[in-house]
Amino acid sequence: MRLALAASAALVLAAAATSSANAQPLADTAAALRDKALAGSPAYPVLESLTTEIGARPAGSAAQRRAMEWGVAKLKALGFQNVHTEPFTITAWVRGPESAEVTGVNPQHLAILGLGGSVPTPAGGVEAEIALFHTYADLLAAPMGSLKGKIAVVTEAMVRTQDGSGYGAANPIRRSGASEAAKRGAVAYLCRSLATNENRLPHTGALDYTPDAPKIPAAALSVVDAEQLDRMVALGKPVRVKLSLDSHTVPNAPAWNVVGEVVGREKPDQIIVIGGHLDSWDPGTGAIDDGAGVAITVGAAKLINDLPAHPKRTVRVVMFGSEEMDGSGEAYAKAHAAEAPHIVLTGESDEGADPIWSLALPKGTADLPAMKTLANVLAPLKIFVDRAPSRFGGSDVVGLVMQGVPVIDYHQDATRYFDIHHSADDTLDKVDRPKMDQNVAAWAALVYVVAESDVDLRPAAAKP
Amino acid sequence: MRLALAASAALVLAAAATSSANAQPLADTAAALRDKALAGSPAYPVLESLTTEIGARPAGSAAQRRAMEWGVAKLKALGFQNVHTEPFTITAWVRGPESAEVTGVNPQHLAILGLGGSVPTPAGGVEAEIALFHTYADLLAAPMGSLKGKIAVVTEAMVRTQDGSGYGAANPIRRSGASEAAKRGAVAYLCRSLATNENRLPHTGALDYTPDAPKIPAAALSVVDAEQLDRMVALGKPVRVKLSLDSHTVPNAPAWNVVGEVVGREKPDQIIVIGGHLDSWDPGTGAIDDGAGVAITVGAAKLINDLPAHPKRTVRVVMFGSEEMDGSGEAYAKAHAAEAPHIVLTGESDEGADPIWSLALPKGTADLPAMKTLANVLAPLKIFVDRAPSRFGGSDVVGLVMQGVPVIDYHQDATRYFDIHHSADDTLDKVDRPKMDQNVAAWAALVYVVAESDVDLRPAAAKP
Repeated sequence: MRLALAASAALVLAAAATSSANAQPLADTAAALRDKALAGSPAYPVLESLTTEIGARPAGSAAQRRAMEWGVAKLKALGFQNVHTEPFTITAWVRGPESAEVTGVNPQHLAILGLGGSVPTPAGGVEAEIALFHTYADLLAAPMGSLKGKIAVVTEAMVRTQDGSGYGAANPIRRSGASEAAKRGAVAYLCRSLATNENRLPHTGALDYTPDAPKIPAAALSVVDAEQLDRMVALGKPVRVKLSLDSHTVPNAPAWNVVGEVVGREKPDQIIVIGGHLDSWDPGTGAIDDGAGVAITVGAAKLINDLPAHPKRTVRVVMFGSEEMDGSGEAYAKAHAAEAPHIVLTGESDEGADPIWSLALPKGTADLPAMKTLANVLAPLKIFVDRAPSRFGGSDVVGLVMQGVPVIDYHQDATRYFDIHHSADDTLDKVDRPKMDQNVAAWAALVYVVAESDVDLRPAAAKP
Repeated sequence: MRLALAASAALVLAAAATSSANAQPLADTAAALRDKALAGSPAYPVLESLTTEIGARPAGSAAQRRAMEWGVAKLKALGFQNVHTEPFTITAWVRGPESAEVTGVNPQHLAILGLGGSVPTPAGGVEAEIALFHTYADLLAAPMGSLKGKIAVVTEAMVRTQDGSGYGAANPIRRSGASEAAKRGAVAYLCRSLATNENRLPHTGALDYTPDAPKIPAAALSVVDAEQLDRMVALGKPVRVKLSLDSHTVPNAPAWNVVGEVVGREKPDQIIVIGGHLDSWDPGTGAIDDGAGVAITVGAAKLINDLPAHPKRTVRVVMFGSEEMDGSGEAYAKAHAAEAPHIVLTGESDEGADPIWSLALPKGTADLPAMKTLANVLAPLKIFVDRAPSRFGGSDVVGLVMQGVPVIDYHQDATRYFDIHHSADDTLDKVDRPKMDQNVAAWAALVYVVAESDVDLRPAAAKP
């Protein structure tokens, strides 16, 4: 079937080459792009190259510099125009050796990962009795001072959902738990990984310290180890844990957004900005988070670049350089503030490589003719247009959204995503190529329809 | 349904208490034991206690001494008779810090576990170009001297099977690969974990060095990391790996088989020996390998111990102290050689806690009336009697089998087993309590039928 689709796509694209692109109906080319992607898009080889040749690439690391060089070379090799980097600086966080164990007469190793941004423990580690809370609400209900000298532990489980909302709901446990524990006197903080898998691989992620509490070291326990601590505490005797985290920060570390374009043939100054983020957490190879998003958007733009004629507007792909610990979206929005009125649409792919199931459009645009055309092209991909409007777009484009740039949200199936993300298990084998190509198909169709039509997705009040 | 079964089991057991055990039909009591196990056996609390309070317990370690003490206390608390330990010594192998990475311009961490018995690398590790073989046969086909100075890597995948035979077939890759590579000049050896899961947790296991080759350090790659090396080699450039393994051996380390009995009421000198092994690999908590086997056999014997009258013959449960690196079965067979003619049956539970699907009996015994009775009791558990006779019994009882002791093999569903065993993921959460109780039901019924009947499972020519 993939071969048959490819052949039909080739026929339509050949037809486009011999007629004027203007005369070619929008829907036919969008459908042909879709089918070409489904028949085997350029995305998977891009992802395989990134994860195999570069591997993990935390922002500010030497690997991220190599990833930047890889990105420039890859975009040039794929034929993109105006390939360049846009440098900025971040405060990089660098993980050092880490360990944790239950101490006492029956010592047991605990599988942990320090949270991004955590301060280190004192040399030699910190050892203390734990105060275990089965829910984050229980921690928040603990009186000030009640955790004095203790290691606070929260073992609340994140809920598996299709739309990833379980992660959002659980996020304060990781983001804010350390400061909440510190306010109550704790000397360190451990939380159950924000994850849905049951294995010994912990999931890291960034934390935020609040100014009104001492900064204490913080780490994520694997789901299995969190459950083990639950059982140990249930035995009724005090449980002591020793935690040792080394880490340091690098101020003014270099980082880069890597950019390539498919220059529009009629209105090159009207721009669609799409992308994923090139940085990853350090334990895995950043396959689903977010090599996939980079590969999907590059793959979609590459298919458009290979059309016999470029669409009217410019398609710009950005490999954002520092999403996990912040920085790339802010840098991009700041650098392109003057250009923002000319950015006709933005969006980010940053939810792995499992299928897209719905599209959220800017408020009030679903009934525009071009969007109706798009909806028809997406329907065979089992993607519907959500009744709710788009909102977020992704961490790297929300800065543009705040400047009034229209945004779309493609909702992917996130059921498996939190089994893997931010852990050592974020590797290429977790990506199903046909499912990733469904993403490429959806992005290619969407971007082409907006780039080739004159559709205006800004609300009437916000027209430049 | 579990409650209803429990009530019916209680009725039958109460009936047994008020009548003579002799008059009580064999089948009824065996079925009542079966149903009592299904309604919630004593096994799971035993396993939870062992994995939570002791955790990992490699033979020769301090944890294994604590496990021995735990075993004695547990058997006494459960009411077993003649609880004691039988000490022996082993050469213990102790893992130290380990690491591996691809070196060069794009260094990448590799998830590995040293193989049990491996020699350490020189201090600072060994770094060399790899010679990668997609199959073990390819390694064996490599000419002598062809791997001089290289790290040999075998990435052949183990096949998932219901009966675990995929593990047996792949075993030489781990057991013999290091010596085969060394014969050909290799300085170190890496193999893909003998495992069926796709994650970053490697699976260890013992190797055997042959006398005709230098001892080189050897480790197992996680399945994911083996696939990553496959991809790197496919890029066509040399791949260099640095491997660092620390380990040492402890000669004459103390170890123990822990024993408890349900003393027979009429023929106490006729003995059924069952058990599992108490030692485990170090990365997990030894839940399925083999805390489960210990808990299943202890749980089954406990149900028999709690009968209103003990069966005629003695039921002996042994927690074997050194299966993974050998020693406990050999020690047991040696210590009990004189007793072997009086051991009427043996068997070991060492395949996790998923359901039993068939029973292999000693050759020619399936048609004995007691075994026909047993088959009927097992049928509702979805266990059939295999046409093929029993063979192995398990590493810890094969020594008895060599001395002519009849043996049974319970075949468990091993489909999931090699996702977990010998890895950090061998933890309590992987055990499904109702499935483990099906095992307990099967062992209790089997052991009771043999202990209460006069069935003779020895071949005619081998009668003492």
